[in-house]
Amino acid sequence: MTCDKNDDRETGSTLKPKYDSNGLLSAVVTDDSSGEVLVIAFMDAQALQMSQDTGVAHFYSRSRKKLWKKGETSGNILSIVEMRIDCDQDAVWIKAKPAGPTCHTGATSCFYRVIKNGALEMVE
Amino acid sequence: MTCDKNDDRETGSTLKPKYDSNGLLSAVVTDDSSGEVLVIAFMDAQALQMSQDTGVAHFYSRSRKKLWKKGETSGNILSIVEMRIDCDQDAVWIKAKPAGPTCHTGATSCFYRVIKNGALEMVE
Repeated sequence: MTCDKNDDRETGSTLKPKYDSNGLLSAVVTDDSSGEVLVIAFMDAQALQMSQDTGVAHFYSRSRKKLWKKGETSGNILSIVEMRIDCDQDAVWIKAKPAGPTCHTGATSCFYRVIKNGALEMVE
Repeated sequence: MTCDKNDDRETGSTLKPKYDSNGLLSAVVTDDSSGEVLVIAFMDAQALQMSQDTGVAHFYSRSRKKLWKKGETSGNILSIVEMRIDCDQDAVWIKAKPAGPTCHTGATSCFYRVIKNGALEMVE
């Protein structure tokens, strides 16, 4: 998040992703209708390209070390409505229409617990 | 995001953050009023603790390699309304009231450009 104000990367119209030392960008997906944060993941160059090319969110799975099309197993894909990039181009925000629950637990969002007084409480 | 369904980490009420190999969690901040994504950053254990203790968002700056109180220089702090954690406890979602523009560029949000046909377009 520390960026040079005169850097074309943050003022220009050229897509120049700034991948970290592992070749990754952060990626957050919100529900285009509710605005709720559904999931946070990572993208490598291939995932970013596939997301742009297909209109469906693709990530890089750090545990499986490979391209991950969200919903490839469950069918609960995330159709991209809009994709934004941040000032220093190391993070992506996707507004999406989810085909079903985003979380593998069956929850609408992966963020179903609030941190309160050092413990977790279920939302809703 | 690949988690064991029977893991207490994802069903329980105990805060057990799953830091990555660099000791970090992903963190996204949305504006509690507008729902807009303001910034994506990282938290280490200290930043998470400070955020809980003070009610103001703290992160870990990967470039400066130290604790980063958002707004420490600009005054544009992020007052935490609610903090959530995701299924496998490696990502945090903060809903906040920003004291001013979140981006160092002066923009309300760091996500002021849309990716369109491989290039960037300003929002608004």
